[in-house]
Amino acid sequence: MKAVETVQDIQDMARGAVFLGTGGGGDPYIGELFVTRQLLQGRRPRIIDASELADDAFVISVAGIGAPTVLIEHLVSANTLMKIVDATQKHFGRRIDALISAEIGGANSMFPLALGALADIPVIDADGMGRAFPHIEMTTFSVYGCHATPALLLDDSGNVISLHTVSDRTAEDVARAVCASLGSMIYGALYPMTGKHARQFAVHGTLTDTLEIGRCIRAAREGSDDAVRALVHHLQRPDLQREARLLFEGKIQDVSHETREGWHWGRVRIADPTRPAGEFIVEIQNEFLVARRDGRTVAIVPDLISIVDRESAEPLTAEMLAYGQRVAVVGYSAAPIMRRPESLAVFGPKLFGIDEPFVPVEILSSA
Amino acid sequence: MKAVETVQDIQDMARGAVFLGTGGGGDPYIGELFVTRQLLQGRRPRIIDASELADDAFVISVAGIGAPTVLIEHLVSANTLMKIVDATQKHFGRRIDALISAEIGGANSMFPLALGALADIPVIDADGMGRAFPHIEMTTFSVYGCHATPALLLDDSGNVISLHTVSDRTAEDVARAVCASLGSMIYGALYPMTGKHARQFAVHGTLTDTLEIGRCIRAAREGSDDAVRALVHHLQRPDLQREARLLFEGKIQDVSHETREGWHWGRVRIADPTRPAGEFIVEIQNEFLVARRDGRTVAIVPDLISIVDRESAEPLTAEMLAYGQRVAVVGYSAAPIMRRPESLAVFGPKLFGIDEPFVPVEILSSA
Repeated sequence: MKAVETVQDIQDMARGAVFLGTGGGGDPYIGELFVTRQLLQGRRPRIIDASELADDAFVISVAGIGAPTVLIEHLVSANTLMKIVDATQKHFGRRIDALISAEIGGANSMFPLALGALADIPVIDADGMGRAFPHIEMTTFSVYGCHATPALLLDDSGNVISLHTVSDRTAEDVARAVCASLGSMIYGALYPMTGKHARQFAVHGTLTDTLEIGRCIRAAREGSDDAVRALVHHLQRPDLQREARLLFEGKIQDVSHETREGWHWGRVRIADPTRPAGEFIVEIQNEFLVARRDGRTVAIVPDLISIVDRESAEPLTAEMLAYGQRVAVVGYSAAPIMRRPESLAVFGPKLFGIDEPFVPVEILSSA
Repeated sequence: MKAVETVQDIQDMARGAVFLGTGGGGDPYIGELFVTRQLLQGRRPRIIDASELADDAFVISVAGIGAPTVLIEHLVSANTLMKIVDATQKHFGRRIDALISAEIGGANSMFPLALGALADIPVIDADGMGRAFPHIEMTTFSVYGCHATPALLLDDSGNVISLHTVSDRTAEDVARAVCASLGSMIYGALYPMTGKHARQFAVHGTLTDTLEIGRCIRAAREGSDDAVRALVHHLQRPDLQREARLLFEGKIQDVSHETREGWHWGRVRIADPTRPAGEFIVEIQNEFLVARRDGRTVAIVPDLISIVDRESAEPLTAEMLAYGQRVAVVGYSAAPIMRRPESLAVFGPKLFGIDEPFVPVEILSSA
């Protein structure tokens, strides 16, 4: 994928990004609109592979930070986006050679594309997790030796805050506090890194993933295929050490939501009408973190758990879930780099307060 | 006053700073200890008048930001103080020519002295309010045209945050949030200004005020004078357009305290045993903001209301007040620059939610 060519591509990518968002990550809709407008004005985001970068290229992540609900209501202005580029280049004293998403799942998949199209900066086909996570430090960048700071935070009003923190977890705490004090929506330029680091530490090919996942769902839906099975078949890529499983199909029995300590907590219970005794539970902490069939764990973070509409395979965010919906739950193995012990120490089950070890979805689901 | 010569001087200044803190501003005790140690090691803070500065001298305020209780528990390290100097000079690309306190009342009177002694940087005999206020934007610097940012915030762990906000009120909101996220105690280098601005916009002579107030109280106490009356007599300076009044003497009947929305709210009720029917109320919002005798306002912010021990005239912070204490309440007119309409628009009664106009203490108390 060398450039995003059509509006259709962007729509497909946004759909794929919701799938990789595993219930969280924010709605990419505003970003999709923004990139669409750029395309219609003749500005295409250029996508590059990390291998195309010079070792000492200057790469940075750009992201929206804030409550997804605010993100949805917030119109991203071209003016603000250009200020992010200008302020970042001034702060670091370097031209930005390439942008990279820290989080491909959800809204922050679109953000680098929007900025890349507007400012004509290439966007690397990669990110820092291949999914969505709620914290700044939960990236492979951080796990393998890059630092979230020095970083810049900006808002639409012209406030600019720079961070230089002793840990990426502290960067998360401070950024979250700054965000709340500035009205719950800010933009960040984070994880300054070299081209070499981007090659070594990122989860690669994830922009392509969003496009292909979105495209696969659309094509299956427009054809006569079973869209969910087509999707699972598409995701199944043993050559990339990626495994996908259809974990459950059924009807949502109830969904509980609660906002507490800055997290969106919840639980969705799904039943199979043909097996009334059995139940399937997905636990939510911003993202879908654990799936259990009849009390037994069948998928767990950082592996991806996504809930899609049973008929159309449209990926659903946690906010979209409602009683009576017919859904399918798909388990998708995280990229191999995400499953190593050093990665699990930063975003494994324990970091979410779940007292279970990580076990790969392909093992859990065949047990 | 050209230099702080003796440990006695520092103790006197700390006592005077509590008086000017009008109940708030934090306890200067830790700062006093730090400066005392510097003196014993032969390092004296040099005090200069703003008139000695070149027009384009680089002047900056340094301050501790945080809950006073945390401030008290926190040992200021020389290492951290030197980092503030280094980080500030690096950030602004200039040598600091002089330090100025933003808030002479309470703990932040000592902070520039500590840094000044350690790093051999002169401290200007002036501040931004001549008292204590709870917010960063509540300074004459801000009222008359300086900006709190660009500013640096730092903590003991090595975290460094720079702020560039569109308003000083936003700087307050962001700094407060950063402070909470970093464990409730940070240091700030704020209000970068020129020597010319320091001359034009500061409240002058306030370091000297702390020394002379503290000295006056000690001398009266050691002699046979009525310490409270000696203090009021000392403060009475028509040549400087400053007026002082002994507003009430009596015994504390009750004190209520509450921490809400990040403010310390409270009310103290004082009765005169010789006039049992009458009562005197002081309303607290971090500082003592309004004093009312039998329901009638006799002093109101930004004029200073201070409560001192009836016998020793030792100034008391809001936290020190307790049932049964014999106290005197002193009203002291704010510096003329603090009483202008543009100043009252930033720290007059309305800004504290008090629906009364500002009326000078000398008028209220003689009505």
